[in-house]
Amino acid sequence: MAKRNSKTARDVRAPKPRIPATAGDDTVITALDLPPEQLSPEMAAYFAKCEEKLGFVPNVLKAYAFDPAKLAAFVAMYNDLMLAPSGLTKLEREMIAVAVSSHNQCYYCLVAHGAAVRQLSGDPALGELMAMNYRAARLSRRERAMLDFAVKLTAEPWRIEEQDREELRRAGFTNRDIWDIAAVAGFFNMSNRVASATDMRPNSVYHGQAR
Amino acid sequence: MAKRNSKTARDVRAPKPRIPATAGDDTVITALDLPPEQLSPEMAAYFAKCEEKLGFVPNVLKAYAFDPAKLAAFVAMYNDLMLAPSGLTKLEREMIAVAVSSHNQCYYCLVAHGAAVRQLSGDPALGELMAMNYRAARLSRRERAMLDFAVKLTAEPWRIEEQDREELRRAGFTNRDIWDIAAVAGFFNMSNRVASATDMRPNSVYHGQAR
Amino acid sequence: MAKRNSKTARDVRAPKPRIPATAGDDTVITALDLPPEQLSPEMAAYFAKCEEKLGFVPNVLKAYAFDPAKLAAFVAMYNDLMLAPSGLTKLEREMIAVAVSSHNQCYYCLVAHGAAVRQLSGDPALGELMAMNYRAARLSRRERAMLDFAVKLTAEPWRIEEQDREELRRAGFTNRDIWDIAAVAGFFNMSNRVASATDMRPNSVYHGQAR
Amino acid sequence: MAKRNSKTARDVRAPKPRIPATAGDDTVITALDLPPEQLSPEMAAYFAKCEEKLGFVPNVLKAYAFDPAKLAAFVAMYNDLMLAPSGLTKLEREMIAVAVSSHNQCYYCLVAHGAAVRQLSGDPALGELMAMNYRAARLSRRERAMLDFAVKLTAEPWRIEEQDREELRRAGFTNRDIWDIAAVAGFFNMSNRVASATDMRPNSVYHGQAR
Amino acid sequence: MAKRNSKTARDVRAPKPRIPATAGDDTVITALDLPPEQLSPEMAAYFAKCEEKLGFVPNVLKAYAFDPAKLAAFVAMYNDLMLAPSGLTKLEREMIAVAVSSHNQCYYCLVAHGAAVRQLSGDPALGELMAMNYRAARLSRRERAMLDFAVKLTAEPWRIEEQDREELRRAGFTNRDIWDIAAVAGFFNMSNRVASATDMRPNSVYHGQAR
Amino acid sequence: MAKRNSKTARDVRAPKPRIPATAGDDTVITALDLPPEQLSPEMAAYFAKCEEKLGFVPNVLKAYAFDPAKLAAFVAMYNDLMLAPSGLTKLEREMIAVAVSSHNQCYYCLVAHGAAVRQLSGDPALGELMAMNYRAARLSRRERAMLDFAVKLTAEPWRIEEQDREELRRAGFTNRDIWDIAAVAGFFNMSNRVASATDMRPNSVYHGQAR
Repeated sequence: MAKRNSKTARDVRAPKPRIPATAGDDTVITALDLPPEQLSPEMAAYFAKCEEKLGFVPNVLKAYAFDPAKLAAFVAMYNDLMLAPSGLTKLEREMIAVAVSSHNQCYYCLVAHGAAVRQLSGDPALGELMAMNYRAARLSRRERAMLDFAVKLTAEPWRIEEQDREELRRAGFTNRDIWDIAAVAGFFNMSNRVASATDMRPNSVYHGQAR
Repeated sequence: MAKRNSKTARDVRAPKPRIPATAGDDTVITALDLPPEQLSPEMAAYFAKCEEKLGFVPNVLKAYAFDPAKLAAFVAMYNDLMLAPSGLTKLEREMIAVAVSSHNQCYYCLVAHGAAVRQLSGDPALGELMAMNYRAARLSRRERAMLDFAVKLTAEPWRIEEQDREELRRAGFTNRDIWDIAAVAGFFNMSNRVASATDMRPNSVYHGQAR
Repeated sequence: MAKRNSKTARDVRAPKPRIPATAGDDTVITALDLPPEQLSPEMAAYFAKCEEKLGFVPNVLKAYAFDPAKLAAFVAMYNDLMLAPSGLTKLEREMIAVAVSSHNQCYYCLVAHGAAVRQLSGDPALGELMAMNYRAARLSRRERAMLDFAVKLTAEPWRIEEQDREELRRAGFTNRDIWDIAAVAGFFNMSNRVASATDMRPNSVYHGQAR
Repeated sequence: MAKRNSKTARDVRAPKPRIPATAGDDTVITALDLPPEQLSPEMAAYFAKCEEKLGFVPNVLKAYAFDPAKLAAFVAMYNDLMLAPSGLTKLEREMIAVAVSSHNQCYYCLVAHGAAVRQLSGDPALGELMAMNYRAARLSRRERAMLDFAVKLTAEPWRIEEQDREELRRAGFTNRDIWDIAAVAGFFNMSNRVASATDMRPNSVYHGQAR
Repeated sequence: MAKRNSKTARDVRAPKPRIPATAGDDTVITALDLPPEQLSPEMAAYFAKCEEKLGFVPNVLKAYAFDPAKLAAFVAMYNDLMLAPSGLTKLEREMIAVAVSSHNQCYYCLVAHGAAVRQLSGDPALGELMAMNYRAARLSRRERAMLDFAVKLTAEPWRIEEQDREELRRAGFTNRDIWDIAAVAGFFNMSNRVASATDMRPNSVYHGQAR
Repeated sequence: MAKRNSKTARDVRAPKPRIPATAGDDTVITALDLPPEQLSPEMAAYFAKCEEKLGFVPNVLKAYAFDPAKLAAFVAMYNDLMLAPSGLTKLEREMIAVAVSSHNQCYYCLVAHGAAVRQLSGDPALGELMAMNYRAARLSRRERAMLDFAVKLTAEPWRIEEQDREELRRAGFTNRDIWDIAAVAGFFNMSNRVASATDMRPNSVYHGQAR
């Protein structure tokens, strides 16, 4: 409302500048302080490709770099799930990523994958809505069914049954698509927890991307 | 990661353009379609002041405009809580607004008050962190205690007891400040529900503010 | 059962008298000890009217009396919501108040508005049932739909969608009525939290009213 | 507030009288309609004693009367738990009954045992507070520890561990007392469920007792 | 997978032998250390019958043996519920016992009644599935409806209403059967809590029975 | 108790044999019916090694065999997490797997990894206790801290903070160990969801292993 210009005694005082909420995010990537190992040639090439295409190496990769085998396994699974051919578009996979991360309140994944949704959709508010409450977004029936499944699978996996899969089929998904929805939702239930457990911090550049 | 440029068969096809996630937000403000009444001179002046200072009238005001008494009562309470002198800064009050709205997953309030946090703090990521998980932000002890109280009061009001108030006092808050924290947190527990019950939509201009 | 007259060794001993569960409720109204300010003439008249019509000033008004602007805003909103013309009867609004307060386990509001339900309905047990479990009461379809909406909005506001509003319409409510249900439910979600945050105590006279 | 005398258009109309919220409670005791069997001489004598001492037979006994063995087993366990010598007073046991039933929102037990708390304590508001939120009552440390244990055991039995028992011991309870707290809390977790599953209705006379 | 034979440096070291997870279960039956009283002749005969038929006295009976009246009441109710004629088979009653105990994560009851399900069904995996997630078992419609009711009654008793009873009737249960389902589910909600509150330990012999 | 031999009218009737609770588990591995692709030479060798060392190929591998890249990525990550050198023993990693799967009520993982815990520990009841309620097991302080972290990370990842990591350090874990605990807990939060989403069924041979 008409608020941001009015002044009261307290607010007139020069306020003590706050530490930014994201202070250190680009330098202290996790709370575990695990020194990186020498990258394998393959991973060094991959990091270089990130630098070239994105302009930076995502912090999650730096976080995994303390152990080459873990880094390679993570990258292989991630790239297969999010980039390989699938009945789901890349945007759909990123929408699942953000809606799942919203349930789990994962700072890292909401920031990094929120940026991806903004970028892939060209609809910046879509990224925000996935993070806030996907039920409030104007979605196609297909998108809604996909997210309902992914979020129920996140919140109460023990309650998923055949009728949940049937809902997806009715919305046009194949059995293979159902696997992919489950696998992406599952993957972010893993990544959200690794990130929360280690206080993983996203590259600050994500915040401003594709706004 | 290095993903956004790679192409697969499916993604190469010209995608059917999505309806924006926020389609209609500036025109269909609630799902209830209540026609506005004639504004009182006082409220007309207030709307004009909003236009002048903000450049627009916040949709929540338009939503309440179907009933002059309700509009006036809402504005009076809102302005007192969020703008009147208080031991809490305006930014602190907006941080409570967003953290509470995050628990309640309220689209309207997260968008409108997220923008306010970005604007008042000059720290855009602070707005996002309040919406995602305030526990992941770098906060002062005072801010953290304030938000812990506000969010517990939101989630489990029946569990608030003297030791919760004591925590606030230990963080430097007075009894009057405790009232204000409670009143702001309470107010957004109301507004979140009015907004969710009516599918209230925020002005789309908020999305891009102060990024 | 046949229990209350039997005696065992322990119970024969003169028991140490308990402090009443509501000790101090009429004198220490909140845990914050905020001294009242001088009432405005308008509010002084309002307090006098309370004394005349009810025989006492509700403690919530005394609690707000530390700040005239907050008191006036609270009274304006309260009176509009609970007393102004509406498609909901006053009893229906009080039933929402109690069912919401039951979810939030708010001592103040359960006592004060439980009394109102007893008084307005002439059915003392209705007041109790709203406080215990509204699902166990014999209700009209209209009342049940109204309370289902209000309690879902209280418990999981993020899950309210068009089909919830449709349920209300099917039970005969207009869009304007839906607003009023949402606004009353929202208001008590606010008041419950202000009361719980401050340990607000109801006037002891309520306990015995309209039994 | 000053509300109950004001009139608006709608409220002036003669309202359609509501069906009482407890309609049929004294005649249709459960939703299962199980015809009573012939009482054993022992149980007939017990029912007669109830009539004599209480003025009525509690509906729960009538509900169990379809099967003499179940009735006898219920009465034996109930009387042992609630009436036999124990380190807990009868009032304490009834307080547990109501606090547990509040968590489970059991209409039957809240009404019947709320009356018992009012009667045994001579403090009517104590009965209400046990049903609303025991944390808001002015309680001794002993009572509070007892109810904290009983309600945690009700809500999250899987989290009870040695330190919970230690809290009780620190508040003065013996190991035998701990058994009794657990047994009474457990018993009402059973009875609450039998009552909810069958829509068991309390004798209407309870509502007005000891107010 | 192919894992259990591979060796790494750490695992080659002779591991320090662990204390068994169930150490002391046959000797320290609860955390309360309540010395048993002299058994009544009836109970002594009952214990002897247990020894003869089962080969041991279930620890729950030893736990109750500190008080003859409590022991007798427990045995009477237990035997009526689990062994008396009923529209439910004994196996069905044991399946309810385990599914309820799974929700409540009760070590004692899961072990003792899991063994009973294995034994009565001749299907060892059925016992495990009741303890893990009954929704994953291949069940008849009747069994599924019965367990859905019992587990809902355990988790949210306040939400059981006529339509839940109707579901049972549609699956072929009589009103009397509904009572029995409720009574068995209720009983284990009691026993689970007495066991958890006292850290009751099952006889170790159960673990290997009917595998 | 002395129950399993007594007979009532109903139970004497020859019961209709039940379909086993696990019917089809070895043949219909998921509800998605995705036909396997040709295995890569590497994976064919891995499957052969499973057959040789375990006597069977775990169904999860067959479930992933519809897509060689997904199978390879899963195997690589799984083997690194569960078999590679770590400050956690293999048994500790399997204990985390089962405790996490218990929270998520995942049939597949409870069966397969329950067997692993029995096998690696030589303490069959340990496997059961991890599946039932790890809090009831007799554990070392180290094991308990590890499982408390893993289960909190599973249930409420948004609440993990520095003090949770500090608890692990106090119990003797290094920062690298904390990563491994998080990674294993995260991995099973993924696998549990893929299994639940697809109704993945464990090889029936697991049920009887190492009892």
